[in-house]
Amino acid sequence: MATLQDIGVSAFINILSAFAFLLAFALLRIQPVNDRVYFPKWYFARARKSPRRAGNFVGKFVNLNFTTYLTFLNWMPQAMKMTEAEIIDHAGLDSAVFLRIYTLGLKIFMPVTVVALLILIPVNVSDGTISFLKKDLVTSDIDKLSISNVRPQSSRFFIHIGLEYLFTIWTCFMLYKEYDNIASMRLRYLASQHRRVDQFTVVVRNVPHASGKSVSDSVDRFFQTNHPEHYLCHQAVYDAKKFAKLVRQRERLQNWLDYYQLKFERHPEKRPTSKRGFLGLWGVRVDSIDYYKQQIKNLDRRMALEREKVIKDPESILPVAFVSFNSRWGAAVCAQTQQSKNPTLWLTNWAPEPRDVYWNNLAIPFVSLTVRKLVISLSVFALVFFYMIPIAFVQSLANLEGLERVAPFLRPVIELNFIKSFLQGFLPGLALKIFLYILPTVLVIMSKIEGHIAMSMLERKAAAKYYYFMLVNVFLGSIITGTAFEQLHSFLHQSATEIPRTIGVSIPMKATFFITYIMVDGWAGIAAEILRLKSLVIYHLKNMFLVKTERDRERAMDPGSVDYPETLPTLQLYFLLGIVYAVVTPILLPFILVFFALAYLVYRHQIINVYNQQYESVAAFWPHVHSRIIASLLISQLLLMGLLSTKEAANSTPLLVILPILTLAFHKYCKSRFEPAFRKYPLEEAMAKDIAERAAEPNLNLKAYLADAYLHPIFQSFVVEEEQVIQVRVDKHQSHHVSPSGSGSELSSPSPPHHVSISQHQVEHNYEQNYEHSYEHNYEHNYDYQYEAEHRNYYSYHYEGQP
Amino acid sequence: MATLQDIGVSAFINILSAFAFLLAFALLRIQPVNDRVYFPKWYFARARKSPRRAGNFVGKFVNLNFTTYLTFLNWMPQAMKMTEAEIIDHAGLDSAVFLRIYTLGLKIFMPVTVVALLILIPVNVSDGTISFLKKDLVTSDIDKLSISNVRPQSSRFFIHIGLEYLFTIWTCFMLYKEYDNIASMRLRYLASQHRRVDQFTVVVRNVPHASGKSVSDSVDRFFQTNHPEHYLCHQAVYDAKKFAKLVRQRERLQNWLDYYQLKFERHPEKRPTSKRGFLGLWGVRVDSIDYYKQQIKNLDRRMALEREKVIKDPESILPVAFVSFNSRWGAAVCAQTQQSKNPTLWLTNWAPEPRDVYWNNLAIPFVSLTVRKLVISLSVFALVFFYMIPIAFVQSLANLEGLERVAPFLRPVIELNFIKSFLQGFLPGLALKIFLYILPTVLVIMSKIEGHIAMSMLERKAAAKYYYFMLVNVFLGSIITGTAFEQLHSFLHQSATEIPRTIGVSIPMKATFFITYIMVDGWAGIAAEILRLKSLVIYHLKNMFLVKTERDRERAMDPGSVDYPETLPTLQLYFLLGIVYAVVTPILLPFILVFFALAYLVYRHQIINVYNQQYESVAAFWPHVHSRIIASLLISQLLLMGLLSTKEAANSTPLLVILPILTLAFHKYCKSRFEPAFRKYPLEEAMAKDIAERAAEPNLNLKAYLADAYLHPIFQSFVVEEEQVIQVRVDKHQSHHVSPSGSGSELSSPSPPHHVSISQHQVEHNYEQNYEHSYEHNYEHNYDYQYEAEHRNYYSYHYEGQP
Repeated sequence: MATLQDIGVSAFINILSAFAFLLAFALLRIQPVNDRVYFPKWYFARARKSPRRAGNFVGKFVNLNFTTYLTFLNWMPQAMKMTEAEIIDHAGLDSAVFLRIYTLGLKIFMPVTVVALLILIPVNVSDGTISFLKKDLVTSDIDKLSISNVRPQSSRFFIHIGLEYLFTIWTCFMLYKEYDNIASMRLRYLASQHRRVDQFTVVVRNVPHASGKSVSDSVDRFFQTNHPEHYLCHQAVYDAKKFAKLVRQRERLQNWLDYYQLKFERHPEKRPTSKRGFLGLWGVRVDSIDYYKQQIKNLDRRMALEREKVIKDPESILPVAFVSFNSRWGAAVCAQTQQSKNPTLWLTNWAPEPRDVYWNNLAIPFVSLTVRKLVISLSVFALVFFYMIPIAFVQSLANLEGLERVAPFLRPVIELNFIKSFLQGFLPGLALKIFLYILPTVLVIMSKIEGHIAMSMLERKAAAKYYYFMLVNVFLGSIITGTAFEQLHSFLHQSATEIPRTIGVSIPMKATFFITYIMVDGWAGIAAEILRLKSLVIYHLKNMFLVKTERDRERAMDPGSVDYPETLPTLQLYFLLGIVYAVVTPILLPFILVFFALAYLVYRHQIINVYNQQYESVAAFWPHVHSRIIASLLISQLLLMGLLSTKEAANSTPLLVILPILTLAFHKYCKSRFEPAFRKYPLEEAMAKDIAERAAEPNLNLKAYLADAYLHPIFQSFVVEEEQVIQVRVDKHQSHHVSPSGSGSELSSPSPPHHVSISQHQVEHNYEQNYEHSYEHNYEHNYDYQYEAEHRNYYSYHYEGQP
Repeated sequence: MATLQDIGVSAFINILSAFAFLLAFALLRIQPVNDRVYFPKWYFARARKSPRRAGNFVGKFVNLNFTTYLTFLNWMPQAMKMTEAEIIDHAGLDSAVFLRIYTLGLKIFMPVTVVALLILIPVNVSDGTISFLKKDLVTSDIDKLSISNVRPQSSRFFIHIGLEYLFTIWTCFMLYKEYDNIASMRLRYLASQHRRVDQFTVVVRNVPHASGKSVSDSVDRFFQTNHPEHYLCHQAVYDAKKFAKLVRQRERLQNWLDYYQLKFERHPEKRPTSKRGFLGLWGVRVDSIDYYKQQIKNLDRRMALEREKVIKDPESILPVAFVSFNSRWGAAVCAQTQQSKNPTLWLTNWAPEPRDVYWNNLAIPFVSLTVRKLVISLSVFALVFFYMIPIAFVQSLANLEGLERVAPFLRPVIELNFIKSFLQGFLPGLALKIFLYILPTVLVIMSKIEGHIAMSMLERKAAAKYYYFMLVNVFLGSIITGTAFEQLHSFLHQSATEIPRTIGVSIPMKATFFITYIMVDGWAGIAAEILRLKSLVIYHLKNMFLVKTERDRERAMDPGSVDYPETLPTLQLYFLLGIVYAVVTPILLPFILVFFALAYLVYRHQIINVYNQQYESVAAFWPHVHSRIIASLLISQLLLMGLLSTKEAANSTPLLVILPILTLAFHKYCKSRFEPAFRKYPLEEAMAKDIAERAAEPNLNLKAYLADAYLHPIFQSFVVEEEQVIQVRVDKHQSHHVSPSGSGSELSSPSPPHHVSISQHQVEHNYEQNYEHSYEHNYEHNYDYQYEAEHRNYYSYHYEGQP
């Protein structure tokens, strides 16, 4: 049990470390050499080509303008400068709504903190039971400010119950306003957007296999029959694992070629050579540029063959397709209705935007999906409740004796006293730390196995799993000591009324723990986030050892993105803590407020300058945030009931029973009132956009616009060789044969006219497109995406007039 | 604890009473005077106008053909004669599928019974612990055949667990086959049906109020914008409570007029007269026919005024409409998609068929619906768990002292010894009996308050509520003695693992009770159902005192219908009993088999000869039946786990844990595989029907067909006066003024041409139509409905060619 002084010391240490991080960040970010680590977003947005301050040679790496050191905290006002509308423009709606969660936290907890501190602390302090019991019970100063200090059977509990009602109503009010706001932001965003391929496209899965007909024919026939006035075209999905491998290989070779060409340009006197053997260490020495050109040529030939094979072979067409319609209305209708008599066939859903598609999961059959879901939910349950078992097993192995047995030559070192004690303290925790570090990745992999077809969905599902883990292992695990497995066991053997009592009674005692937790994980953790230490180190390491070309440098930048699977559950945990402790130990609230404020600033800065979202789900995660806050309210009400029932406040506790029911009703209402805006696309909206578009662009060639929007990214590859461009478009209607490489400026595939024209611009455009769609590095972002889309239209208009 | 002999006696008594009922039925049904009680279905189907055997005067009332008495059980083979397809034709799919529940019960339990009896009884009997313990424990012979007889820690429990797996898999297999079967029956039925108005119509609720525009204009505008190619027309819904009153009044007067006219026809020498005062007991004596004619004329004038007022007054148009489309595809699209940005406005759903609409609930606003649902779910919870409280209160009042205080003059009677003892035994139970008798009605009223818009939905929801009541109060309440409230209390104070143990351990002991229950409620109850004692008495009473005209006699027939709110939950309780006891006390199974077989015969007979369904929901209740049987499986698995854990069978019990998970997974799979067939209408299907129809009837006038299909039944009234027909069609497009009565053969409303032609046939047709749509007595049934629909088309074709 910590005293107020202990908390003070802890706060001091954590504030100090947070400040140290912030200071380090402030110093590092103004060094030109770090510019790509702290401002990558601007590079991707093409708003920045090189660090702002160039100066002399030293000035390229170190900031010599000493006045900037004096204003080292000026990133904070800078981060605040952008308006919300600008952030939406700059980083998308997801990011803007993510920031709103923090402001929502501030809006909810600011008044709650003031009211709770002003009312509850005097109420709790003045009733002083704990001071009488001091000899029996070890209590802290914090406990004097908490509900523990109130005598059993006191009528003061009416005040606590009243405040619980007040806080619940206030939170619900804020939640309602926010949901309303975000739902209309979402609709406004969707309405204001330029034409997007996913507005016209529906993904249809489980296309039945008709004997003697290809999948493409079945799809065409089915939609021409059932959506005769709206069906436009479709894009088949190919199974191209082997081709993907070749693409990756080619990319590697291309990179080496670029490197040697650059080298040759810089030192034209010496033509670069390399050895052909393993890692270039031995073998015949050859001219590098010629060698790689030859290699690429060979590979291109193989790729062309493989590509042709994939496209011609009906076996490689998966029973899934992206079906496009000639109007948003048609797509909205198809996405929301049941197509076939057998509801496991012809399953239609909105297509995610092309960047968001998780290609590997598209072709999972229906039964397999059911089985996968079952298996994964069982695994998540096991993971949440039994994860300590394998870790304990590993820990039992990873002790000193084991280490000595495995590596006997280490014995003399291990037997040194200080190393021994260090290892003894370190080893057992290692397995746990590694587990916790890889947990989010494991959860994402589990979500992938579950079979979701959009990255955004994957991340949301992983976030949900992580939330359950945190709720059980961090929140409940800290309150009732013992592993989750022990908790499960005791829950199974306790009655439904006993469980909230057991948890409720220990809640006030754990306030100091959670205050420390908030400071360590919240304050210092957030300050560490802005420093991006890991990215900084990795970028400089890559820069030193791996970066050969400008393209490599671009790739070495790791802007990252808001890590939803980890940040959303963390955030929700803070909401839970705040709501649970608001009435019990209000002194915890200011710490949460500081967290929300700091995190808001940091993430605002990161979103503006660093993160580069890989997809735009248009705030699709909001319903989850909303319902988890509601769950927090319910948990807090149940626990308060449990706590009060141990305080023998029999005349006041029953008043609380109605509150969870009302909260649930509120949730149900919100769900039916707002959630459809996140799951469906109203026809009114679709029709309005269709009409507006038809009026503005009556001659729009939608078919050309949609032609290869949902082509698997690896097929959107290109061959650049001595200024010759071969653009391969794989489209059922247009080409079933592919040009052999090196066929000069002639396009062998009968693609739409605008593709025939070859210009330097087009080459660049294709280059970008390929780069952005490259299989391994999805560095695309909103801007480029829109830019590209508009660009492509530009071509289609531009060239259509001059065939 | 009953012995086998006790059960035998009870069985004998119940079989005797069941036979008595069957015998009484067999005798009564062949009396011509009862023909309308036991064969009303055929009267409604117009296949029977009067009893088969007329003969002399006595023969009109009593069957004198004594040979028929000898074959008194021949209704059973007769009931079996009809094939399923004929039943679907004759009584609709609902009835046919309802019968399938019983055959499903037979199919599931027949092999289960054989296997369980053959395997388990030897296993249980031979392990005889109970015989050793006989001195300590009072056990019955039945217990020797049950799992109670197996020693604790016996490895024989593996057999029980194995059989539980086997039975679960068998049940799931049968359920899957049945669901598949019924889903395709439903689709086939929908596909094979002739054109139905509800296939083209969607009900749209929560039409927003736009200032300065009427609801009709808003609806027109909205759907013309958002479904331009498919929207056809719509039907407004009027608030016409006052008009409904007038219609009822007019009907009463018309009936009297008919009566006196009939009387006058029979005795033309004496013109009937009546007194004008109260109940015809005093006042001025007038000529009856003239008087009622005058009265009807006056009323008609008032009705015309009122009707005009209702239709002209925009205030009386409710914010709800039936929107019709020009194709099934258009309607299917509109029903399944979200229309408006605000998901609480323009809510679209499939329109129930016109007979099925519950008009009073159409205009409930969205927020009110949420509140209603909350209130009703709380009330159902209270009703299920606390219903004993008010009954105990009433019981405490309804004792002899209370009665004497209220009615002191009864004291001398009450103080008589035998009356006193009778009352003392009778009064306390009376409140409970009354409560149980009115419970289904109360539940239907609760479902009405909940705000469902279709009668079929109302009944399904009431059935769900009744099931919860039965589950808690009959099943659990019999196993753990004590009121539901006490159970709730003990459940709240027991742990999650303790509850199945508590219930599980007492399950085998209650087998005898449930065997008796099955015989009393199942066997004798079903036999009483076929006798229709209540209907018989009421019909004859009505016939004696109230029936004046042939129309009255038709009305006095009360065919009833399958009482889903009561029969479905009862059935589901038998499934639960069978599944739970299959492994525990298999001797119970034969009793359930007999119930299923008997009930199947009885309901088959009733459906063929008696019941007249008021609506056709096309087996919409099946998903509920399916999921309740799954729930029974889960309950049985949990209880078996609890039971075995008290038997210290620690090495076998964990094997059972996986079973509920698999069962749940199976349920989820079935839900996604089949349920959409019951909730949605696949576009493929809609399109196929549209195309077929367009090919068959290219000139179909759909607008005329749909014009007044969803007119509130009271507006489909008519005025017959001296062979003049005034047909009033209320349609926004066609008439905003209504003809005054008595305007001769000229139609004032510009309705489609086929309405202009007036013939005796048309009068009859209207007569029927009005009768069948009459507000109080919804005696319509499938045949007439289709007949009418076809008829109307006939007119439209017939007259269109000759304007």
